[in-house]
Amino acid sequence: MSKTPIVEVINFGDELLVGIRENSHLTYLGAQLARFGLPIQRSRVITDEAIEIKRAFLDAWEHSDIVITTGGLGPTADDMTRENIAAALGAELVFEPAIEAQIEARFKALGRPMAAHHRKQCYRFIDGKVLQNERGTAPGLAYQCKSKTLIMLPGPTHELTPMFEKQAIPFLQSLGALSEEEAYLQIRTCGSGESTVEETMQPLVQSHPDLTVAYCVHYGIVDVRLSSRDRRLDMEQIKAIGQEARELLGEDFVCFGDCSLAKVVLHELRALDRSLAIAESCTGGLLCDAFTNLAGASKVFVGGVVCYSNDVKVSKVGVPESIIEQHGAVSAECAIAMASGIAENLCSDYGLSVTGFAGPDGGDEKNPVGTIHLGYHSPVGVWCKTVRYTGGRLDVKARAVHAALDWMRRKLRKYKVEEFLSCGERD
Amino acid sequence: MSKTPIVEVINFGDELLVGIRENSHLTYLGAQLARFGLPIQRSRVITDEAIEIKRAFLDAWEHSDIVITTGGLGPTADDMTRENIAAALGAELVFEPAIEAQIEARFKALGRPMAAHHRKQCYRFIDGKVLQNERGTAPGLAYQCKSKTLIMLPGPTHELTPMFEKQAIPFLQSLGALSEEEAYLQIRTCGSGESTVEETMQPLVQSHPDLTVAYCVHYGIVDVRLSSRDRRLDMEQIKAIGQEARELLGEDFVCFGDCSLAKVVLHELRALDRSLAIAESCTGGLLCDAFTNLAGASKVFVGGVVCYSNDVKVSKVGVPESIIEQHGAVSAECAIAMASGIAENLCSDYGLSVTGFAGPDGGDEKNPVGTIHLGYHSPVGVWCKTVRYTGGRLDVKARAVHAALDWMRRKLRKYKVEEFLSCGERD
Repeated sequence: MSKTPIVEVINFGDELLVGIRENSHLTYLGAQLARFGLPIQRSRVITDEAIEIKRAFLDAWEHSDIVITTGGLGPTADDMTRENIAAALGAELVFEPAIEAQIEARFKALGRPMAAHHRKQCYRFIDGKVLQNERGTAPGLAYQCKSKTLIMLPGPTHELTPMFEKQAIPFLQSLGALSEEEAYLQIRTCGSGESTVEETMQPLVQSHPDLTVAYCVHYGIVDVRLSSRDRRLDMEQIKAIGQEARELLGEDFVCFGDCSLAKVVLHELRALDRSLAIAESCTGGLLCDAFTNLAGASKVFVGGVVCYSNDVKVSKVGVPESIIEQHGAVSAECAIAMASGIAENLCSDYGLSVTGFAGPDGGDEKNPVGTIHLGYHSPVGVWCKTVRYTGGRLDVKARAVHAALDWMRRKLRKYKVEEFLSCGERD
Repeated sequence: MSKTPIVEVINFGDELLVGIRENSHLTYLGAQLARFGLPIQRSRVITDEAIEIKRAFLDAWEHSDIVITTGGLGPTADDMTRENIAAALGAELVFEPAIEAQIEARFKALGRPMAAHHRKQCYRFIDGKVLQNERGTAPGLAYQCKSKTLIMLPGPTHELTPMFEKQAIPFLQSLGALSEEEAYLQIRTCGSGESTVEETMQPLVQSHPDLTVAYCVHYGIVDVRLSSRDRRLDMEQIKAIGQEARELLGEDFVCFGDCSLAKVVLHELRALDRSLAIAESCTGGLLCDAFTNLAGASKVFVGGVVCYSNDVKVSKVGVPESIIEQHGAVSAECAIAMASGIAENLCSDYGLSVTGFAGPDGGDEKNPVGTIHLGYHSPVGVWCKTVRYTGGRLDVKARAVHAALDWMRRKLRKYKVEEFLSCGERD
């Protein structure tokens, strides 16, 4: 195929439309195809009704080069994708004894006879290909007509996944539709809003007319994705632009790819062979959770205290009572005392703390709901920082966790620079 | 509206098509709309390109009664939904000073001037409605033409959610498109698998032919949704069946609706006027997080210790060193010592603990990866329980948290029953 083919995915299944289940097939197929340079152009979710199936399929077939469907290939009466699409295409389905033999073998292995309703799964397009299902009864089907390609996959994730990777991807590669080159470069940033990041990227957008830039925001993180439509720029060129972007973004640059902020901090601490303890109040365990989601966290993270009451702040974190009396539990002073106290109490090199009002209740004139004080204790010094967020309790928690991690990431980076400078001074 | 309107959702955003993010908006909107009796008929995901936006929108507009869009209302150059849909509709957008004033006020509160590119967010349809955004700059828009309705929502979840619930739902109800009452009854269960719950429900399915039952499983919770196609059973009848189901489900019944397990436990403890402390190892903060996600948690939850190292288990939780030496940190004995130790150390009435191997590393012959020991300390006694899960680290963490909460819920329920019995004996 000379130009990038247009891919459309159709997911059949009522459960995706009434909030029962997330459409993880789309996420999976999107990631797989993007990895090989073929982003999905559009997708739709359709109920299992004959008229809907036919209409959606024909519209997709008309406007796309490759159509991939999921679901509706099972043996029951509401599995009607195969028959309805064949009817819409005016393509003939033929009985394939090889499929029947495989389904029978599968049931034999389970010690059961094949039920009669599985016979409907034994059909393929007259000029089409069968995609073997190594984990279930529903085979996938492939069909080509003129310059268009149809791939039909079964609904269950554990059946779809190996079928797609072992059979559909090589098939699409054999057509020249997929390459082995990645299609985009992601730059993760934190610390500036989407519009500021966009302004920062402006010089690159202007100097590279073939560059496509997209932004994705989540709780203070702004991901920038660099790509080039119709592959006018190759990956080497995009990576070079990525390096320019990194320079422009300065400290806001977190990483290329999709490392979590906690992972970046963890990597820095592992490289330094230093340990970390956490004291958190309003984030209530979410900051510890961010670290402990990472395999191998225990090599750096010794533990944390969720100090929801003042008693626990004093007795378990080591905050002096006088600090709480004079400044309150939600104060920069308390945040610093928490960071140093937890590091001392849990015998770690670094201490990170969060105290604030996540809402909906609490807060006062000086510290309204959404005010968060961060404390940071390190071998080279102690700092505090205050941030303020709007939004619900869970949003404020998530933002505060990202703020704490991003702040620590910056401090760790600066510390290394200072260490370097002081080495230089000693020479 | 006399017949059930056809609803189509269009999600704009490249990130949904290249595997960056799951389409949680569709799940959320599907659940919200189904709750009020209006299931989504179809949905599509479209890239942020003018020609795609227009074509998809016009096709949806032609074949549906209500079109809901998400995304593409931001201030940046790739946010083009508003302009392209207006062009496709041939509808005029007018500058709305009230929106500008709100965005300016928002920036003023943050101590920053409003950037010029936010001006594009200040437009509404000439005969349309503005949906206020209480958490961001992008207002939502509503537009009606003939018998069709368009609702445009911003992409960020924390902006979309309150806008949809507080403004879009009442608006759709005012049009008669959404019912004022909920369309199904949800029963939350925990402790048995989907197939066991399905078997338990069989007698009800057989005795009520107009009843529709759907199941939704997440990390050990099985939600059962009772409804009736074409509303052959009204909500009173469904609620009566729900009471029968509650009896059949026994202790597996958690609640009607979608209360989290943590909320159920918190309510029980508040009713008893008792406090709780947590010690968690492999769940690493996620159990504390489950409680602290709830407003008012501080009235019950005093705090917790994430004891990732043995030192912290001994020094901060009060686990005797001999227990760790004799039985190991991942043992039922350690779980009990953690539960009692944390209750004593943080001066709470109840203590709940988790220790185990979440994977991918760790584990031994006796306690392979996925083994979790739970400890529970209460005024009437101390218990332990061991569970085992397959799956990745995050799955095991999530399952372990649900297991701990469900176990505590059952114990609390039993304790109250015993209290009642002992009161009876004293009479």
